[in-house]
Amino acid sequence: MALYVHKYGGTSVGDISRIKNVAERIHKARQRGDDVVVVVSAMSGETNKLVALAQAVQERPNPREMDVLLSTGEQVTIALLAMALQERGCPAVSYTGWQVRILSDASHTKARIEDIDTDEIIADLACGKVVVVAGFQGVTEDGDITTLGRGGSDTTAVALAAVLKADECLIYTDVDGVYTTDPRVEPRARKLDRITFEEMLEMASLGSKVLQIRSVEFAGKYNVPLRVVSSFVEGSGTLISYEEVGVEKALISGIAFNRDEAKLTVQGVPDRPGIASKILGPIADANIEIDMIVQNVAEDQTTDFTFTVNRGDYKKAMEILENTTKELGAKHVKGDDKIVKVSIVGVGMRSHAGIASKMFDALAREGVNIRMISTSEIKISVVVDEKYLELAVRTLHEAFGLEQSE
Amino acid sequence: MALYVHKYGGTSVGDISRIKNVAERIHKARQRGDDVVVVVSAMSGETNKLVALAQAVQERPNPREMDVLLSTGEQVTIALLAMALQERGCPAVSYTGWQVRILSDASHTKARIEDIDTDEIIADLACGKVVVVAGFQGVTEDGDITTLGRGGSDTTAVALAAVLKADECLIYTDVDGVYTTDPRVEPRARKLDRITFEEMLEMASLGSKVLQIRSVEFAGKYNVPLRVVSSFVEGSGTLISYEEVGVEKALISGIAFNRDEAKLTVQGVPDRPGIASKILGPIADANIEIDMIVQNVAEDQTTDFTFTVNRGDYKKAMEILENTTKELGAKHVKGDDKIVKVSIVGVGMRSHAGIASKMFDALAREGVNIRMISTSEIKISVVVDEKYLELAVRTLHEAFGLEQSE
Repeated sequence: MALYVHKYGGTSVGDISRIKNVAERIHKARQRGDDVVVVVSAMSGETNKLVALAQAVQERPNPREMDVLLSTGEQVTIALLAMALQERGCPAVSYTGWQVRILSDASHTKARIEDIDTDEIIADLACGKVVVVAGFQGVTEDGDITTLGRGGSDTTAVALAAVLKADECLIYTDVDGVYTTDPRVEPRARKLDRITFEEMLEMASLGSKVLQIRSVEFAGKYNVPLRVVSSFVEGSGTLISYEEVGVEKALISGIAFNRDEAKLTVQGVPDRPGIASKILGPIADANIEIDMIVQNVAEDQTTDFTFTVNRGDYKKAMEILENTTKELGAKHVKGDDKIVKVSIVGVGMRSHAGIASKMFDALAREGVNIRMISTSEIKISVVVDEKYLELAVRTLHEAFGLEQSE
Repeated sequence: MALYVHKYGGTSVGDISRIKNVAERIHKARQRGDDVVVVVSAMSGETNKLVALAQAVQERPNPREMDVLLSTGEQVTIALLAMALQERGCPAVSYTGWQVRILSDASHTKARIEDIDTDEIIADLACGKVVVVAGFQGVTEDGDITTLGRGGSDTTAVALAAVLKADECLIYTDVDGVYTTDPRVEPRARKLDRITFEEMLEMASLGSKVLQIRSVEFAGKYNVPLRVVSSFVEGSGTLISYEEVGVEKALISGIAFNRDEAKLTVQGVPDRPGIASKILGPIADANIEIDMIVQNVAEDQTTDFTFTVNRGDYKKAMEILENTTKELGAKHVKGDDKIVKVSIVGVGMRSHAGIASKMFDALAREGVNIRMISTSEIKISVVVDEKYLELAVRTLHEAFGLEQSE
């Protein structure tokens, strides 16, 4: 008998009729003979409502109390889903994070799971029950309620699948799988049947917001096959797992992009060791995340140093950089917040030369000027002007033949 | 240093500004040097909202899951109140029922408290913290969440006051104390400064809905002085405690009444032993609560048997009774659902003769016809036609001099 962990996000359990649909789906899985553990989020909108209440009471809500408050969201969903399952004759029992004993550290609002007790879950499954677990929440050794931060319900599901050695962890969401690129940009984008953990990490971090990075990392670490499936339409979704030996892989799996980028360049920096940390240190101290970094070869004892940040941090980064520049004796600073990043991702490129030149050629033919380039083992990213985003994505999608069926 | 348990009901914490008012009040008590443990209910309306969700999902909501669902209501309030206290510089920490470890039996939706761990509460108080506890909820030995049923937050407060040996348990509510009768019926009704547990029980069970009977019984059993106070206006409220020796007590403390009554009479019942249980057994089997029971002395080997039930159960009780009557060979059944019960309550009547005749005289002078009479140690109740309710209450209030100040 196979064991599956299902995870349903806030939209999938957003109202009573959707909760009933979820119960229906789980009941069918049970009737096929599967054992099922379900992880659910708070009904959509509930968490925001609770956050607003807290902020109306305390300027900076106390993290311990915030977790007491927020954890009620999933607690409502587990009870309602267990009732909905029972109503259709499917035995079910709900557990909060502390009832399962999902032990976490004490970093309130962003706790990390340390251990999970599985005895009761295994006993309930053996009795034929569906076990409904509250996502996103844990409990410390001292009995304080914690929450796991953004995407925490995915993490709960993956962690449960890992400790229970589940056959698959199914993440039900409002999309029907992982696509070669965003279908809103390239209507010919194709759903992938499979993708590797590494590719998914690159796709996710580059802006394909299907899964939280942390849960993909976690699944990869414990080798839990993850499947992204739609809550609303039938289909097999996309399976995320390790690369299978002997399977002919496409060179490129998808085209990711990120509109939320801005770049800053310090020109004429004296080319001395330690210059990068002098420039980036103050930026990091201000809690601004840096994405790409490019430094050109030095000319005349000076160099140009370029990096990208989230567009929302652009002004702040520019102010900091103007101060740093004076101290370093650099010539001047320039920036651009009308840029985007477009990336090709695929494990296939490891063993194939010529992928990069094929990418640059394709873009050049369409007159897309490349402003920055950055590469990794399974990804090549370019920065282009914002106006070229759609053109660049469609061009690359076609150049690597992604619209064809596998 | 004195220790007080405060209890705030749903109306008192009904919105953010009220929660802030409660925090203000508790902070003042702390500044006076009191140690404070606070018990709170769900924000008003929340419990009904959760019940409606459950009923939309499951026809008869599973009691275990219902408790998981309902207990979120108080959990939201404790977090918000702890935040509101912290915001005004008053150290505070929240605890759910399971976090305190309010151990209960497993009777979901109507559990009874069996034990309370006080170690953490005492340690927090010693650190100068206000301890905010979720009312209405407990946890079983097996770690299942339970709720205590109607008035459960009062019970939590009284139980905590008992185990912590608090100086007083203050029940904050939307009235400023216990009155000699309902001020909407008799505008000259007077707030009582003190009342005994026994009197309060009679007043509560007769329809003065200030406190739940169970919490008064509990407070009496463990001798926890209870004080009913208003959340909205300043004042010392009404203290409920044991009768003080040597204090001259008024004969009568108050006039209680209950509009929600209906009476049924079986006429011409053969006067045999066991007849009462034959009549009342099927009624009890149908979960209909019986209030007053009167059986007249037998004439001609038959007797008349009368009892009262809640008006909502009248029709059902009548149907059952018509069947029973045939089996017993009784003459016939009649009923009246346009009756009310009016009672005088006071520990003083124990040692004073003539209270009953004073009551009946006063009613007779105003032409109020008495349909039934029932008496106990500290109470005399009469059933009268509904239309006489206000007249009867005002007449008795004046006859026993209740409008005068103590």
